Amino acid sequence: MTKWVYRFGAEGNEGRSDMRDLLGGKGANLGEMAQIGLPVPPGFTLTTEVCTAFYRNERQYPDGLHQQVADALAAVERATGLGFGDPERPLLVSVRSGARVSMPGMMDTVLNLGLNDTTVEGLAHGSQDPRFAWDSYRRFVQMFASVVLGVSHHNFEEIIDDAKTEHGVSDDTELSAAHWQEVVAAYKELVERETGAAFPQDPHDQLWAAIGAVFGSWMNPRANTYRRLHDIPADWGTAVNVQAMVFGNMGEDCATGVCFTRDPSTGENIFYGEYLINAQGEDVVAGIRTPQPMAEGRAKPGELSMERRLPGAYGELLAVRERLERHYRDMQDIEFTVQQNRLYVLQTRTGKRTTAAALRIAIEMAQAGMITEEEALTRIQPTSLDQLLHPALDPKAERHAIARGLPASPGAAGGAIYFSADEVEARAAKDEATILVRIETSPEDVHGMHAARGVLTTRGGMTSHAAVVARGMGRVCVAGAGGIRIDYAAQTLTAGGVTLKAGDWITLDGSTGEVFAGAVPTIEPNLSGDFATLMGWADKVRRLKVRANAETPTDAATAARFGAEGIGLCRTEHMFFAPERIGAVRRMIMAGDATSRARAIETLLPFQRADFAALFRIMGDRPVTIRLLDPPLHEFLPHTDEEMAEVAEGLGQTLASIKERYEALAESNPMLGHRGCRLGITFPEIYRMQARAVFEAAAEVAAETGRPVRPEIMIPLVGSARELEITRAEIEKVAAETAPKDGSAAVEYSVGTMIELPRAAMVADAIAAEADFFSFGTNDLTQTTFGISRDDAGTFLQQYIETGVLPKDPFVTLDRDGVGALVRIAADKGRSTRPDIKLGICGEHGGDPSSIEFCEMLGLDYVSCSPFRVPIARLAAAQAALRMRRSQAAHKA
Amino acid sequence: MTKWVYRFGAEGNEGRSDMRDLLGGKGANLGEMAQIGLPVPPGFTLTTEVCTAFYRNERQYPDGLHQQVADALAAVERATGLGFGDPERPLLVSVRSGARVSMPGMMDTVLNLGLNDTTVEGLAHGSQDPRFAWDSYRRFVQMFASVVLGVSHHNFEEIIDDAKTEHGVSDDTELSAAHWQEVVAAYKELVERETGAAFPQDPHDQLWAAIGAVFGSWMNPRANTYRRLHDIPADWGTAVNVQAMVFGNMGEDCATGVCFTRDPSTGENIFYGEYLINAQGEDVVAGIRTPQPMAEGRAKPGELSMERRLPGAYGELLAVRERLERHYRDMQDIEFTVQQNRLYVLQTRTGKRTTAAALRIAIEMAQAGMITEEEALTRIQPTSLDQLLHPALDPKAERHAIARGLPASPGAAGGAIYFSADEVEARAAKDEATILVRIETSPEDVHGMHAARGVLTTRGGMTSHAAVVARGMGRVCVAGAGGIRIDYAAQTLTAGGVTLKAGDWITLDGSTGEVFAGAVPTIEPNLSGDFATLMGWADKVRRLKVRANAETPTDAATAARFGAEGIGLCRTEHMFFAPERIGAVRRMIMAGDATSRARAIETLLPFQRADFAALFRIMGDRPVTIRLLDPPLHEFLPHTDEEMAEVAEGLGQTLASIKERYEALAESNPMLGHRGCRLGITFPEIYRMQARAVFEAAAEVAAETGRPVRPEIMIPLVGSARELEITRAEIEKVAAETAPKDGSAAVEYSVGTMIELPRAAMVADAIAAEADFFSFGTNDLTQTTFGISRDDAGTFLQQYIETGVLPKDPFVTLDRDGVGALVRIAADKGRSTRPDIKLGICGEHGGDPSSIEFCEMLGLDYVSCSPFRVPIARLAAAQAALRMRRSQAAHKA
Repeated sequence: MTKWVYRFGAEGNEGRSDMRDLLGGKGANLGEMAQIGLPVPPGFTLTTEVCTAFYRNERQYPDGLHQQVADALAAVERATGLGFGDPERPLLVSVRSGARVSMPGMMDTVLNLGLNDTTVEGLAHGSQDPRFAWDSYRRFVQMFASVVLGVSHHNFEEIIDDAKTEHGVSDDTELSAAHWQEVVAAYKELVERETGAAFPQDPHDQLWAAIGAVFGSWMNPRANTYRRLHDIPADWGTAVNVQAMVFGNMGEDCATGVCFTRDPSTGENIFYGEYLINAQGEDVVAGIRTPQPMAEGRAKPGELSMERRLPGAYGELLAVRERLERHYRDMQDIEFTVQQNRLYVLQTRTGKRTTAAALRIAIEMAQAGMITEEEALTRIQPTSLDQLLHPALDPKAERHAIARGLPASPGAAGGAIYFSADEVEARAAKDEATILVRIETSPEDVHGMHAARGVLTTRGGMTSHAAVVARGMGRVCVAGAGGIRIDYAAQTLTAGGVTLKAGDWITLDGSTGEVFAGAVPTIEPNLSGDFATLMGWADKVRRLKVRANAETPTDAATAARFGAEGIGLCRTEHMFFAPERIGAVRRMIMAGDATSRARAIETLLPFQRADFAALFRIMGDRPVTIRLLDPPLHEFLPHTDEEMAEVAEGLGQTLASIKERYEALAESNPMLGHRGCRLGITFPEIYRMQARAVFEAAAEVAAETGRPVRPEIMIPLVGSARELEITRAEIEKVAAETAPKDGSAAVEYSVGTMIELPRAAMVADAIAAEADFFSFGTNDLTQTTFGISRDDAGTFLQQYIETGVLPKDPFVTLDRDGVGALVRIAADKGRSTRPDIKLGICGEHGGDPSSIEFCEMLGLDYVSCSPFRVPIARLAAAQAALRMRRSQAAHKA
Repeated sequence: MTKWVYRFGAEGNEGRSDMRDLLGGKGANLGEMAQIGLPVPPGFTLTTEVCTAFYRNERQYPDGLHQQVADALAAVERATGLGFGDPERPLLVSVRSGARVSMPGMMDTVLNLGLNDTTVEGLAHGSQDPRFAWDSYRRFVQMFASVVLGVSHHNFEEIIDDAKTEHGVSDDTELSAAHWQEVVAAYKELVERETGAAFPQDPHDQLWAAIGAVFGSWMNPRANTYRRLHDIPADWGTAVNVQAMVFGNMGEDCATGVCFTRDPSTGENIFYGEYLINAQGEDVVAGIRTPQPMAEGRAKPGELSMERRLPGAYGELLAVRERLERHYRDMQDIEFTVQQNRLYVLQTRTGKRTTAAALRIAIEMAQAGMITEEEALTRIQPTSLDQLLHPALDPKAERHAIARGLPASPGAAGGAIYFSADEVEARAAKDEATILVRIETSPEDVHGMHAARGVLTTRGGMTSHAAVVARGMGRVCVAGAGGIRIDYAAQTLTAGGVTLKAGDWITLDGSTGEVFAGAVPTIEPNLSGDFATLMGWADKVRRLKVRANAETPTDAATAARFGAEGIGLCRTEHMFFAPERIGAVRRMIMAGDATSRARAIETLLPFQRADFAALFRIMGDRPVTIRLLDPPLHEFLPHTDEEMAEVAEGLGQTLASIKERYEALAESNPMLGHRGCRLGITFPEIYRMQARAVFEAAAEVAAETGRPVRPEIMIPLVGSARELEITRAEIEKVAAETAPKDGSAAVEYSVGTMIELPRAAMVADAIAAEADFFSFGTNDLTQTTFGISRDDAGTFLQQYIETGVLPKDPFVTLDRDGVGALVRIAADKGRSTRPDIKLGICGEHGGDPSSIEFCEMLGLDYVSCSPFRVPIARLAAAQAALRMRRSQAAHKA
């Protein structure tokens, strides 16, 4: 005889967590909990094979099923000391569906099954609460009628509305036991009217109807659609779980609560949680009564701990806590009920926690030998580390919140408010701490966002321009604070009854979205302790090196503090925009003759040299990858007539000729235009100047420190080996010219290229002959591979992602099938020519865990990301290395 | 003893054309000519091994060389009946270098070697022309001194200038024998002064010095540089050719001439050429005396044919002609000299010819069994066919040329001149034949160029905007006609003393660059005869199908006339610009609500249906590939305030809201923006309308003709399978809606995609699951693969090609390493999913022979190109097929 029914908590625990296919997810979990000795409310599971047999056999149940259910139900009765349909001590059960994977569209749950006109009185008596009993009954009738009998639920709402009108009350809670009794009668009439049959009073009829409804729902249209969309085979079937109901509201020896095996906000190893005497689970959540602490040690004056109130059940719970952590080897979140001094564990699952708690729990468990260091590493979501890396408000400081928006970019920062990007930039140039306040931001505000310590907007969500750009820059941002009114004309901000004017201070908490008037002291993040321990473990495990994308000394110092092992991308063009340089840059571009051009370039040389020297000093002997000028020249051009006139004067040209040149430099598709090494080849003096600045700065710093400096000069937008050959030759010429006369090798430079064009990937074998390293510029490579300009994608890319045309934003997570395939080709081809070629990635994907995993799969040498992403990348690289080892081990086995 | 010297024409012919490595190119050719019995002036070749031995042995000649040279020289003396250094009948020789490949930078030639103070008299006596003898001597001294002794040549020029001043003459030709004799004396003094030794009088000393100079020049710096740049190994060495001089100016029984075995301008099989009695080769070229015809049949009154004047030599030459064509199996260009009634063939090579001649010769030779049809096919440069496909001026018509420019786009056309594109368009709309006349053109003139019959510019070269665009369109174009002055203000054109005003007629010959006042009758190209024969042979051989890119009925009809086997690309957006449609297009884009958008789209439907019906009628049951809307919407937008106001009124919106939408649609990089299927997915109603127009038109035409119509609907810019799946589903829905009620299958449609993004290539296996065909859009694929916008490439691409950074313009000839590699990947992946997937190419590369060869290598099914390129593609496809067969056969062997 096939075994169709598996018991748990009732004369045998027959299920286990690895029996998901047979028992469904829920059934397997219940089986597992019972198996490890947790006091779960007893019950049983009808297997998925019943479902399959049911459909194979024209919706007939297999032989023997009825008997096996009857036997299991009897065991539940014995285990609980209750009787199914017993008028005095009625056993009530829940009936739930449960497939291998959770599946919306199927019947979910029927609670309190077994109630009828007789047993409701038994429940009223047992709970000493007739109102509860009749409310439970009406809920059961409504739920059963709706999900089992298919009666539309709004009919029931009408009946309640009528009852409230009749009794002159406005809220459900004001209805008494007698009122609910009337409602039940009306419900039953409604069911009879709609279905043509009386509401079933026999609990066994109820049970089989509910079981039938679960199996029937497996093939309903909504479930079919869901399965089709998610590739779930119909023959998996669903299981049905029947479980005794337990009640925490049947007297003063009853309770219900939620607890965590450790503190979910700090991770501290204490028993944490709260309970209510004589209450249902929903009462804890509803917040009408104040829950009390579990442990006596945590009880404040006037509170009554469960440890003191229900010492027996509490003792059992402590044992459960112990057993659970030993079994699941992670912090657990437990829902429990005490019914007449008897403890039942309703649910246990891995507990949600803050990042700080996750860190502490993982580390302490590893230190206690419960898990390995490697397991500890896998317990932390790399991106969650971001929460720990930014300044936070001093918890002890006073504060006056005036509004709350979205926590758009983490950290805390205060400053004087200004309402335009130009004003912010001007103030910041004088070292004033500023906050940019805008209704919303646009690309024209970016220079102000960069200059500000924080950004506040009153409109827009987590993916608004302000939010996205601020996160990229590591600026604090509160977005969409709708409670704030901005008056640009008056230059004021009004919120929470306060009006602030330009120059007044506010403080933002980008991690909570709160906005405070005045200055609130902040504390720097603690990068030692658990964080340092975890990073140390990650560094032992990871193979990929982690570098940072940084141009400014500030960013470089941040990167170094976060453990960057070098700079993977220094975008030299960012250095061209400073007010004292842009003039020379413009003269360089606009020069009509070689002499004026040379003079302008000569002006830039000392600036660039100082830029590079500053970076070399910070990075010491760690490698610094310097990308030569990349963007199209017109990005640097003057836009206003005044600016153009200035350039014209500086060059002794007419305004008209400057304007003409401006027009000539405009491009239809600048992304695909005259930029990158194309500039370096057509205007070789620019790269020559940059190379000279690199070598002279390197020599200077090496002389100061006595240690070699390691610049890696990177040529952008190479599409053919010849381009690299030409630019490399120029650089080597400059290197020879600037080499120290004494022949010392203080500068250990190398020359490589970005791989950011599909063609570069396809001819990477030829390019590698000229390249000491490749750095995958996956931003541009994604743009060219997809043929999508990031600047213009707004109109359709969001829709593409929302409707699943693309699974993910390819600018956030590397597209493995397309862009990744090209990266793989390039890596293979590059190595075929030069087996020891250094390979890295410097697009924004370098800070994305999934993309980092792909880099590990390809065996790249390093990833490079924005400074605040460095710890994330270190951890992600470690996790990727562990997964690779595991999959290789599995492959070998 | 190693054989160091090979003789020709002198007691043995020891060389052959396949002995290039040993004898060099020139020596091998001379050997071959002698070998097949041509009367070459006798001589001998010192092998390349002499050169190698010379350098291996510290510039010493190998043993036995001197003796072998002496023996060979003696044989030459016997063969000519002259003596080297003989005062009466002196043998003069030329000494030439000759490596395997022609190599600038090496010593080239010394002529008349053997002349000295004594032999010059013998030459004077023999030629009865002392002036010629002394002139020859002074030339020899100058040449020898310059190339063998290294005396700078401008010293010699001074001496001649002095002589002319002294004798009061202004031209070299006015100097007499006596004057030249004085010059020789001065030359010899100069040589002695410069070199410290007298000019060598012994011919043997001269000979060995010249031989030494040839071998020495192999290692001079210029030759070394050339070899390095062209990867020529130094150990190839050079040969030295020593050959008897022959003279056509030694009396009335002497002559010199140039002839072709067939007529090089028509290809007619007659002996064609001209000669001069008692003359040197340079006299024929110089044009001072009028050359006479070879054949009596060709002699006009007053002319004296060689056939009549020198019947013996003529008879020999006829035999040579016969022998040459039999041997080389192609039309030959022969240089000959008759010295004292004795014929010498100096040179023979494959003769240059017009395309018409090439065609006729190839076909007649094949028909005569001299070559196979397949060989005939390989004899024609596919691109040269372009000359035959356009209307030409009637050769018998009178004409009045007023100017000449560059032959920028072939064909002949006449029309009324107008000076602005708008004016041309307006006039053309009234069926007036027009010529657009501009100083130069820009993208804003393109609509006028399209409307005009021809384009004339006064500035710009063969790659100017006007030239490139006109060729693409198949419009006649004369560019850069600098002799014409245009006055836009006065609306006049002045050239050749004539002033024409707007509306006056001119005629352009785009094949010659000539501009004529008034209307010159033209004749249509003859596409029958030889042309048709060749195309027929090509069609028998080729495997690739050839289709055309065409939208208009005119283009489709042209394509059909040229043998297109279908339309491979109908760009539907080109149909949106007509004045009566653009309004509806703009309303469609600008519509604020679905109803107005639907109404605008409804307006477009009948237009599109008529467009497609017209194409289907022309193409019959040949496939027509219709690409749905591709470019970004803003390309269709109104630009002027008036146009915007018009749209605003049509939609009942404000001008401000229209302007706002205009701004919103602007893109930073439209090439990579919201276009192609991205539009089709975000605005599905557009593709639905287009699909409906296709199916309704197809049904209509099928009903008319009773034959099935074969539309292939093509989705542009697909980057993922899902995009194609979504758009395909929409199209299939429309197909079902419009299917004939009677269930007849009059429309045999298929749905496929462009492969024009690198990502599409990388995931082509997934895309193929949704695609009946792939059409490689190599224009866009080149743009995205290289990351080069064609619109913006002007600033650097030309420089890249000129300086060899890129070997060829990748927008003209498919880049096999990069773009081609992606095409190959996509073809392989596509076939892996769907082995019978139809593969074609529709970028402009589809008309480029090298790119077509690549398509053949990949086994694509068809190429599609502009209508005028169809014959070129047919021939190129045939040649590619032949090359593939040959290389496969070679591979097997």
